Amino acid sequence: MDTRFGLERCITLPGDFPLAGGGVLPELDIAYETYGTLNANATNAILVCHALTGDQYVASSHPTTGKAGWWTRLVGPGKPVDPEHWFVICANVLGGCMGSTGPSSVDPRDGLPFGMRFPVITVPDMVAAQVRLLDHLGIGTLAAVIGGSMGGMQALTLAVYHPTRVKKVVAIAAAARHSAQNIAFHEVGRQAIMADPMWAGGAYAADKPPAAGLAVARMAAHITYLSEEGLTEKFGRRLQDRDAVSFGFDADFQVESYLRHQGLSFVERFDANSYLYITRAMDYFDLAQAHDGSLARAFAATQSRFCLVSFTSDWLYPTAESRRIVRALNAAGAPVSFVELESPFGHDAFLLDAPEMNRVINGFLTA
Amino acid sequence: MDTRFGLERCITLPGDFPLAGGGVLPELDIAYETYGTLNANATNAILVCHALTGDQYVASSHPTTGKAGWWTRLVGPGKPVDPEHWFVICANVLGGCMGSTGPSSVDPRDGLPFGMRFPVITVPDMVAAQVRLLDHLGIGTLAAVIGGSMGGMQALTLAVYHPTRVKKVVAIAAAARHSAQNIAFHEVGRQAIMADPMWAGGAYAADKPPAAGLAVARMAAHITYLSEEGLTEKFGRRLQDRDAVSFGFDADFQVESYLRHQGLSFVERFDANSYLYITRAMDYFDLAQAHDGSLARAFAATQSRFCLVSFTSDWLYPTAESRRIVRALNAAGAPVSFVELESPFGHDAFLLDAPEMNRVINGFLTA
Repeated sequence: MDTRFGLERCITLPGDFPLAGGGVLPELDIAYETYGTLNANATNAILVCHALTGDQYVASSHPTTGKAGWWTRLVGPGKPVDPEHWFVICANVLGGCMGSTGPSSVDPRDGLPFGMRFPVITVPDMVAAQVRLLDHLGIGTLAAVIGGSMGGMQALTLAVYHPTRVKKVVAIAAAARHSAQNIAFHEVGRQAIMADPMWAGGAYAADKPPAAGLAVARMAAHITYLSEEGLTEKFGRRLQDRDAVSFGFDADFQVESYLRHQGLSFVERFDANSYLYITRAMDYFDLAQAHDGSLARAFAATQSRFCLVSFTSDWLYPTAESRRIVRALNAAGAPVSFVELESPFGHDAFLLDAPEMNRVINGFLTA
Repeated sequence: MDTRFGLERCITLPGDFPLAGGGVLPELDIAYETYGTLNANATNAILVCHALTGDQYVASSHPTTGKAGWWTRLVGPGKPVDPEHWFVICANVLGGCMGSTGPSSVDPRDGLPFGMRFPVITVPDMVAAQVRLLDHLGIGTLAAVIGGSMGGMQALTLAVYHPTRVKKVVAIAAAARHSAQNIAFHEVGRQAIMADPMWAGGAYAADKPPAAGLAVARMAAHITYLSEEGLTEKFGRRLQDRDAVSFGFDADFQVESYLRHQGLSFVERFDANSYLYITRAMDYFDLAQAHDGSLARAFAATQSRFCLVSFTSDWLYPTAESRRIVRALNAAGAPVSFVELESPFGHDAFLLDAPEMNRVINGFLTA
């Protein structure tokens, strides 16, 4: 039995890990899970990349919340990414808080948590860490990389920065750059965290986090993951456990109660400094920037086939942004299929029951 | 010279002022301005109602910021609401912080600021206060009421609750109810304020406000006042005073710098508790609620003519909501004209240079 493979793995990769911003990490921890069996030629590996607040528990229950894996609708027996056929890898991103090196990690050079001494990272840095993991696992070229939202950004980045490492790229509800509105919402979240005195310049103890600020950040972000239509359908102006408004500041409305719950439960499973660093990485993300703003040129060296999926009611990374990527791939001569799926559930649609998305991904993987 | 008329007026109206939520204010201060001259029959009065963070300084400079009146593009010499022809009134809303009774006012019963002892108010309460002011000024029936956003909510409410008091109603970028998404954004703002330890349960001193929390609330709200398109046009991913990103948490991007400025400057002119109470009033707003959800029935008794204006890129109170109001007015047999104007500037479009809006309002007022 190869101890590199299985659930709840964590590997420390020694040696400098240089970052796009000029910083260097003295070593790199990567917490990950694998599902299924790597075949003899290592040709059946699929890397799943998680979104901003996701983690490596794509198809097994979360150690803190006990909830089922975050993408069991796509990954699992009988699903498009079936461990019976595929060797599935999912790692906590660089900068995360579930075991991979991040601001809450201890700096091995002085034995103290990084906190805000952690260097600012980028999406390409996250992907470079994923590639280190592939090296460790003995995987030269992935059969596919799949991700939604920031996971989709990583998938696109892998194809651009490491063109020999992946055959097929699935980017769902994703973008090739953060828009001004995307940056604005992230900045609100960061300011909410930094405004919390418990944040203490990032030097809070693990058991005394800036919970109030992080909860507000999550609430603001959560609205952007849902559509106006979806919120109206799910909550409308319905009241929470009462027949009439209280004429007070309780959570009279179901949507208020829901948002407060989202904020509070998030704090139990996520680190505030990780939130700062990962949102920053997303804001910095712009695949075309190093190519004089030409996204087509960014994709010039890619050897992958692409599958893009967007959702009609996603206003965070709207269809227009996926179309922009498709046009650039066309211009670069890269094979790409694209579908916009009807959904009232906004950006979060990719995490929900989406049989059409599953059919599209299954078709793309088996073609 | 009638001292009731002119700039920087403030009147204390004695006697109980009952509120929709069951509370009673022992007296009512209303801070207001008037422009122009009331004619002999008092038939040329126009009430302008301000939005969430607006004030009575519609056409004269703000005492704190020194900035020009907030709607000088519509109100002033040569503008559709010209004080040469019209007698223009604009009052700080009930619950506000510019002189009208609100949470920062002193409760005359004990000489202490209300703070969170202030009763929760509603938009109909705000409008009832406006009507008290009209009584004080000797105005029976307004020639018109005009408002954008929450001002438009007040304008519609006046027509529904006080049908004899207004002939023409102009509601711009408005709604007849707050949607789940509207409530959600307001709840984020309130939680940001309440999460600030300086808020102190609302009992902060005037010179020690919960500035950080209020700034975050403003930043989140401000994003909703602009469109994705407008933000992209205005800021895109352009950097602020630098050639490359800093790989840090400074305001690298112009949109971050802009938002931070919006948050900081807001704190200088607005009270955090007022923000809580006024957003709550807006969330509670639903004109149809008292009529079994029928907006047409809410308008059944109206004797007014209506003019509704929406903007294409306004996603806070989108065109669909204006259309819903128009359909209800049609069903109620009330004369209504409606126009959706092209604009990339989102909800805030009504406060910006909008010559088409001015033409529409001018035509409606003079018809």
